[in-house]
Amino acid sequence: MHVPVAIIGCGPSGLLLSHLLHVQGIDSVILERKDRAYVEGRIRAGVLEMGTVGLMERVGVDARMKREGIIHGGIYISVNGKRQHVNIEELTGGATVMIYGQTEVTKDLIAARLDHGGEIVFEAEDVSLHDIETKKPRVRYVKDGNQVELTCDYIAACDGFHGVGRQTMPQSKLRTYEKVYPFGWLGVLAKAKPVADELIYASHDRGFALCSMRSETVVRHYVQVPSSDAIKDWSDDRFWNELRLRLGEADAELVNEGEVFEKSIAPLRSFVAEPLSHGRLFLAGDAGHIVPPTGAKGLNLAASDVHYLSEALIGKFKQNRDDLLETYSDTALARVWKAERFSWWMTSMLHTFDDHHDFDGRIRKAELEYILSSKAGLTTLAENYVGLPY
Amino acid sequence: MHVPVAIIGCGPSGLLLSHLLHVQGIDSVILERKDRAYVEGRIRAGVLEMGTVGLMERVGVDARMKREGIIHGGIYISVNGKRQHVNIEELTGGATVMIYGQTEVTKDLIAARLDHGGEIVFEAEDVSLHDIETKKPRVRYVKDGNQVELTCDYIAACDGFHGVGRQTMPQSKLRTYEKVYPFGWLGVLAKAKPVADELIYASHDRGFALCSMRSETVVRHYVQVPSSDAIKDWSDDRFWNELRLRLGEADAELVNEGEVFEKSIAPLRSFVAEPLSHGRLFLAGDAGHIVPPTGAKGLNLAASDVHYLSEALIGKFKQNRDDLLETYSDTALARVWKAERFSWWMTSMLHTFDDHHDFDGRIRKAELEYILSSKAGLTTLAENYVGLPY
Repeated sequence: MHVPVAIIGCGPSGLLLSHLLHVQGIDSVILERKDRAYVEGRIRAGVLEMGTVGLMERVGVDARMKREGIIHGGIYISVNGKRQHVNIEELTGGATVMIYGQTEVTKDLIAARLDHGGEIVFEAEDVSLHDIETKKPRVRYVKDGNQVELTCDYIAACDGFHGVGRQTMPQSKLRTYEKVYPFGWLGVLAKAKPVADELIYASHDRGFALCSMRSETVVRHYVQVPSSDAIKDWSDDRFWNELRLRLGEADAELVNEGEVFEKSIAPLRSFVAEPLSHGRLFLAGDAGHIVPPTGAKGLNLAASDVHYLSEALIGKFKQNRDDLLETYSDTALARVWKAERFSWWMTSMLHTFDDHHDFDGRIRKAELEYILSSKAGLTTLAENYVGLPY
Repeated sequence: MHVPVAIIGCGPSGLLLSHLLHVQGIDSVILERKDRAYVEGRIRAGVLEMGTVGLMERVGVDARMKREGIIHGGIYISVNGKRQHVNIEELTGGATVMIYGQTEVTKDLIAARLDHGGEIVFEAEDVSLHDIETKKPRVRYVKDGNQVELTCDYIAACDGFHGVGRQTMPQSKLRTYEKVYPFGWLGVLAKAKPVADELIYASHDRGFALCSMRSETVVRHYVQVPSSDAIKDWSDDRFWNELRLRLGEADAELVNEGEVFEKSIAPLRSFVAEPLSHGRLFLAGDAGHIVPPTGAKGLNLAASDVHYLSEALIGKFKQNRDDLLETYSDTALARVWKAERFSWWMTSMLHTFDDHHDFDGRIRKAELEYILSSKAGLTTLAENYVGLPY
């Protein structure tokens, strides 16, 4: 069997790519290691840049998002209990973000893909990529115990940090950049009303906290915890108490407790692989780079990669242009590094490190104070938060 | 002998303070370890914020500065030979800086101080400060072999990083923050025409360079060098060649060589001491904090300290208010930390470290690219460069 584009991974980036190609009449197959229920159950980010929303519109998968998503034109930043509003819409001249869970994006994209007759192979095991330096790469996998082989023109690896895509790149040609932070995020999903009308990013001497939401009745909250902490260390009570402490007295009153139905700890990491392509293999999203979640860039960066990659593939299939495929890595990486910078910066500025009494710690404090006191400083934050232009 | 305010150090901050007090009829004496020729010969910075210019106007020592100083409404930033103009005046809504050497500021302030009958004791040796926790502190020094003792109401230590002022603070109450950079600046003064109409800050893989000027016929240029380098390593020829390489081919053509009449290497350091006061002793300028020279904040920060300290002393002597003296340290430090942040940031972003291939190095590169591509980013640079409001 031959397919123009083999897509590895059924997350939002693989799905969006498949849709964007489909709109232009280009066929693809998505191979996914897990089953559909697992993929649709993964809890991830929930803040979409307008560029990401625009891609959902372009592929016609925006109806439920527009109905259920919540537009936010600002965020709050709280510093040791003192909360300040950042009017992002005003600072950026009208830009906003959309609160809509990545889980919902994935569900919508899968449903629409299947509705349009798209092929998604769930539970495709032992995926391996071959002959990526030739004009006819092959993808092998095992489905229901049977070995399957696809030939294709191009492979898009949208298979995440641990996926086969980056591992197949010749390691001698790959340069990686990494930063591991000395803490993680304890995240909970709970059936409760949001703390405020917009997200609260809280910097506190006890550690960072984030009050986010999925809807008017489901909240997503996070607190910074040491990397060594485990879920068992965090009872629901301890979590709610810690969240209140980090919000400060006034905002603690606004916290609505509710049934916690998901609780997990995620490490924070910055990672970039260069280049994002080799031969006919192209990496997009977490396969090529990871950002810490502060600033909500992970999903949005996957979306911009996919935007560039879809343009490049469409250019090839429709106009036989090779140039966009050749420059894909550089084009995508230019935006990736800016988002890496923003995510690192937000993480550094808002989290508590063990260096309150060192020069570096005081500089971070001064940076936050400066940014919050300067319209230009707030504008840099705002324009990155809503997403730099593609 | 009794004097209301004893000022240690005859640099711009001590001199400015003495003038600001004099204008309000408050007497002071300046004690300086070195002789007048030495003090007037020290080569330092040359970019004055409008706030600093305003203080010179307020004390009526602005005539020569206005005649000979050069107003700059922008800077150039060059990245590996590609130069971009930053229109600071436009970005800040009209703010500019004044190019006028610190040496000239010092000469003008000394001349005016002596003209007005002010007392400056040059070659005051072995200065020591006593009873700073009492209402009648004393200053002892040796002049022409004779021991002298002054009583005073307040002591202002404007005596630099190595001065007696900070050393007299009880060390148990002093917290210090420091960062030493792994490079220095080789600076030259030369009789030549400036490279361009405004300063060029050059970031280059070979290292940072700065093309500055003192007048239309005297240039002040710097190149980043390893901390281990000595002056003997740098012939004039090597310096001019290196400067041209870091400016890139096009701008190298614009470099005018001329007789080098001063050449020195200075280390780069960030340093802050907290608090800036104890009892009746007050630190201002380099006595309390040091910034790396990138961004030209050293002299200007001394000027803002002196502004706050003069207001506090005037409040005490004129209205018997203690509050401004009590809050002087916090007030001054709030601005100090913002300038420390800016100086650290400009230094980090524009210099070459040994980490091109590390995450941190790539983040700095991304930061510079972002700032140069964003109006808001450039505005944060511009508003800090001209000086945040007092």
